[in-house]
This record gives sequence, structure tokens and C-alpha cells, in this order.
Amino acid sequence: MPRILISDGMADEAIRELEGFGHEVVEKHYSQDELLTGVLNNYDAIVVRSATKLNEKVLSTIDVDNGIKFIGRAGVGVDNIDIKEATKKKIIVCNTPQSSTQSVVELTIGHLISSTRHIVKGDRKLRENIWAKKELRGTELAGKNLGLIGFGRIAQGVSKVASAIGMRVHCFDPFLNKEIANANNCIIHTNVDDVFKNCTHISIHCNLNEHTYHLVNEERINMMPVYGNDGNKCGRHIVNCARGGIVDEDAIYNALKNGDLSSAALDVYEKEPLEKSKLLELEDFHGSPHIGASTIEAQNRIGNEMVVLLKDFFDGKRPHSALN
Amino acid sequence: MPRILISDGMADEAIRELEGFGHEVVEKHYSQDELLTGVLNNYDAIVVRSATKLNEKVLSTIDVDNGIKFIGRAGVGVDNIDIKEATKKKIIVCNTPQSSTQSVVELTIGHLISSTRHIVKGDRKLRENIWAKKELRGTELAGKNLGLIGFGRIAQGVSKVASAIGMRVHCFDPFLNKEIANANNCIIHTNVDDVFKNCTHISIHCNLNEHTYHLVNEERINMMPVYGNDGNKCGRHIVNCARGGIVDEDAIYNALKNGDLSSAALDVYEKEPLEKSKLLELEDFHGSPHIGASTIEAQNRIGNEMVVLLKDFFDGKRPHSALN
Repeated sequence: MPRILISDGMADEAIRELEGFGHEVVEKHYSQDELLTGVLNNYDAIVVRSATKLNEKVLSTIDVDNGIKFIGRAGVGVDNIDIKEATKKKIIVCNTPQSSTQSVVELTIGHLISSTRHIVKGDRKLRENIWAKKELRGTELAGKNLGLIGFGRIAQGVSKVASAIGMRVHCFDPFLNKEIANANNCIIHTNVDDVFKNCTHISIHCNLNEHTYHLVNEERINMMPVYGNDGNKCGRHIVNCARGGIVDEDAIYNALKNGDLSSAALDVYEKEPLEKSKLLELEDFHGSPHIGASTIEAQNRIGNEMVVLLKDFFDGKRPHSALN
Repeated sequence: MPRILISDGMADEAIRELEGFGHEVVEKHYSQDELLTGVLNNYDAIVVRSATKLNEKVLSTIDVDNGIKFIGRAGVGVDNIDIKEATKKKIIVCNTPQSSTQSVVELTIGHLISSTRHIVKGDRKLRENIWAKKELRGTELAGKNLGLIGFGRIAQGVSKVASAIGMRVHCFDPFLNKEIANANNCIIHTNVDDVFKNCTHISIHCNLNEHTYHLVNEERINMMPVYGNDGNKCGRHIVNCARGGIVDEDAIYNALKNGDLSSAALDVYEKEPLEKSKLLELEDFHGSPHIGASTIEAQNRIGNEMVVLLKDFFDGKRPHSALN
């Protein structure tokens, strides 16, 4: 009977379904120190979110014959899994890339509007009994250029909603599907800098890797125009609901502090949980605690997709989202 | 030389333009007590936003021959102007109905997503050094029914964006243009109750009058389903960026308190500025201080439209948005 470890939680319904297939499901979170003792050799498969780090050290403890043979990432980003080491140990790695798309799209649009219309600050002031109507004059998104760094499923969803709002969408993606970009009526750029040079609003939708680390930096922020396409001085706005580290948080802090940046909304951080960040001292910083996929719908879809991946794997088939 | 009083502010560019026409423009806010002393007889026209109340008592002080002959409302709602009394005094009343449409559309969508994804609460918790990722599980808008009360320009704009997000839009408007509703692919209802019975998310886009006062009440909140069209338990959500008084704030407080309502986002209140409201004690209340039209773009458009209205009036033409 296959033993499956659910390390960072999963939707109840999916767990019941796996048990219905006769699998033994253990819901338990091991610390990084515990993982190094070789506990994963007691399981056939593990399902993680982002909290459990399956790095080279942890995976090196795996016994190729008796340890886990399947790593399921309940979510998209696999930067917490050393896929190279997993391959060495003959462990297959799968993620659930489509399940959280809609949730991240909606959070991105929410952060864009919250930032430009001071929704968070407005509520904060009201709770301080300050009717800050005059100081909360914002700007419209309509008539402005939105730059999307990366143009996968999430960016395509953001593009559709932003277009309905009346924004003009620009994009850069080294792996761009031009047909999709054209169908979305996007202006395609061939390098990152040109997106920044054209857009007052930038949203990040790429993976974290050595090419994208600190992609949003002081130099690029200062390339952005402060006047919108419609001639209104809307300032510069950055949203990151992708991965921490793509945005240089020190550069964001300095740019907000000296007025080069009008707002920054971050859902993800270089070090999570975010603790005592100096960003939290600034009025025009908007933070959320990595909740891009934190919806009932996304978690249910992730659970359903993971059940299919595990079923296929234990049935001897190659799971549809295998990454190695 | 016509003398124009700008009572609650107007975009600088518009004021310069009026002066360019040779008008004398006075920027001054009189208290309600001062207005009762007949100061408006020193002007030919007045431009107000919502702060100045031109009620029956104030307008009764106007001398038909020497007092103001034009009231311009820089904005949409004219509930602060007694149009009947103005007509008696032969004063023409105009508003700028289209200038703030886009700004209110964007704020409404922003509040909808902020509410369902806990954007405000997430930022608040981060500033308290609490990484509240787990308690901030939200729900998607996609797959849910959005009910719009009123289907004028703003609701049509909200409908377009909400459809792009993946919501199914329902509406009720006693003056409904069916062609427009059909073109927006809206489900048309013939009474208010049916919208509440079908929708987990409701947004208000009607005027305040004797028919719409406390239209959102305890009974109607409890008519709303708590499960979305997609089968997910998303709870009930109310947004009001239209006018205070349409929503019964006590009913909202009680429903949030006892869990009948999952979130309420209000930009407008029965009494403004909002002071020491018990709503502010609740985590799932989201407030903004009447900033629907508070954008650079809306204020510029309002100013430009007011210049045209005043120019036409003083040229002896009937202004295009005359309400009496």
C-alpha cells in the first residue's frame, strides 16, 4: 500500500479521495532538520507547497530503492525543489501549473487597483478616524500602459482583464508564443528594458531563476515613464504576485522613499515569512502574505489535479505535468 | 462680468480656462450658516461637489433677479441640491454625469477583489508583524454571480470587467435599456429581490431616493445564496460605491458580526465624513472615504465638462446636462 506524505496541507476532499484508492495518507509537517535525518525513506511519495524545502541536502538522504519516488508540488513554482538532485535519485517531480491561474490573476488586478486608488491606506486612515478623502486622490488604470514580464497563463489572464479595464498591454517573454500575444492584442517587446521604458504600471509573471533575480531594480524603475499614455501624471507602479527575489526589495524601498515609485504591491518576498521589513514603514507599500493561490477554488483544483497525478504515477503512467 | 463661486474645489486647469473667458472665479467654501445669510446673491453661478448642501432653506434665500442662476454639480449625484426649489427660483441645475464613470468602475472592481481576497486585512496583519497566510484564504470571483442594482453607465462598465474576470452578471434597473443589458450579456431581473436571491456578490449603482433608501437591508442580505454558481462556498459580499443611505449600515454591521455577510466594502455612508462608526471595529468591513471620483483623470474631465456647461449657459444656450 503506497504511503503518501502531505507535508504542507492539501484540500480535505483530495485526501479522502486518495484514501478511497487504498493509499495511506499521512498529514505531517517535518522541520528541515527532521527531513535531513532521512524520514522521507518511510514514504513512497510526498506532496509539498512552498514551505517544505526539498533542497540538495534533503534529497541526498533519499535511498533510491526504498525512499520517495514522487514529489508533488501542490502549486506552480518549484524553486523549493532541487529537480537535478531528484532526477539523480530517480524521483519524478510534478507540479499543478494551471490550478491557481485564476486566483493569481484576480489578486494581481486587485493589487493594481488597490495601489492606484489607495484602498488599503483609505481603510487604515478610516480606522484612525481620519477622513483622508483629499490626500487619497488616485489615478485611473484606463488609458495607461501595463507591462507584463512573462506571458504565460497568468499574464494572459491579467492581460484580458486589464484590456477590459481600458489598459494597453505590453509584454516580454523569452519563450513567447506570438500567436497568443497577438490574440491578446499585446505589444510585444524583445527585451525587458523596453517594457519598463514604455509602461507606468509593471506586473511580474515570470519564474525566479538566475536571469530574473532582481530583474526589478533601481535602474529599471527609473526607466519607467511617470506620465500615462493619456497624458496624466499617474506615477510608477509595480506589482509582484510571482516569486520573491525577482524584485529587489531594497530598490523598491528606496524608490518609494524618495518618490521615484508611487506604489509597490508585493505578495511574495525574498525571505518568507516577511518579518520586520522596513517596507512596512511606508504608506505606499501594499503587502499580502503570499496568498496568490490561497482560495478555496485554487486549493480544490490543486487537490483534484494532485489526485490525478498520484493515481497515474502509481498506475505506472507518466503524470501529465512531470518536470523531469 | 459673470461671477462664479467654486465652493468645493475644481481642477486648476478648468479654473484658469474660465478666467480666460473673462469670468471672475472665486474659490471659497461657505459654511451652511453663511449660505443662509444670502451670500449666494453676490454670484451669478455656483459650482459644488457633495460637501455644499443647497437645500430648500439655502435656496430660499436667493433673489430671483440678482442671485445665482446656475448651479453646477461637479460630479453625478444631485441629492445635495433641492432641484424643485431651484426651479422655483429659475436656477438651472447641471451635473457632469459621465466624467467619473471609469473611476467608479475601477474602484468597484478594486473593492470586490480586496474584499474577497482580504487585501486590506493582509496588509494590516503584515504591519502587525503577523504572517496571516492561513487565515486569509479567500474565494475567486470567477464562476460567481454578480448582481448589479441599477444598470447605468457605471454598472455597464463594471459588468464588462466582471465578465472578463469570469463572473455572470445579473441586473435590475426600473429604467433598464434592454438592448444595452443584452449587449452586455446580462441576466435581467424585474425586481430587486430576484437579484439578491441569485447573487453571492452585489454591487450598488443606483441613485439615492425614497425607493432606494435602505434597499440593502437584513431581509435582502439573508436572501443571498452563500454558495457560488460553481459550487464553492464563497459567502455573501456587498459593495457600495454609489450613495450612502442605500445600504442600511446597521444591517451590514449585524450581518458581518453574526456571519450572515462575509464582507462589505463601502465608499459612501449615510453620514459623511464617517466618524466613530462601529463598522470600523470589524475585520471584514472595508472602508474608503468617498473616493469614487477622486482621481486626477475624473477631476480633469469634470472640470472640462463644467467649463463647457458654464460657457454654454452664459452664451444663452441650454447646457447639455440641464436637469430642470
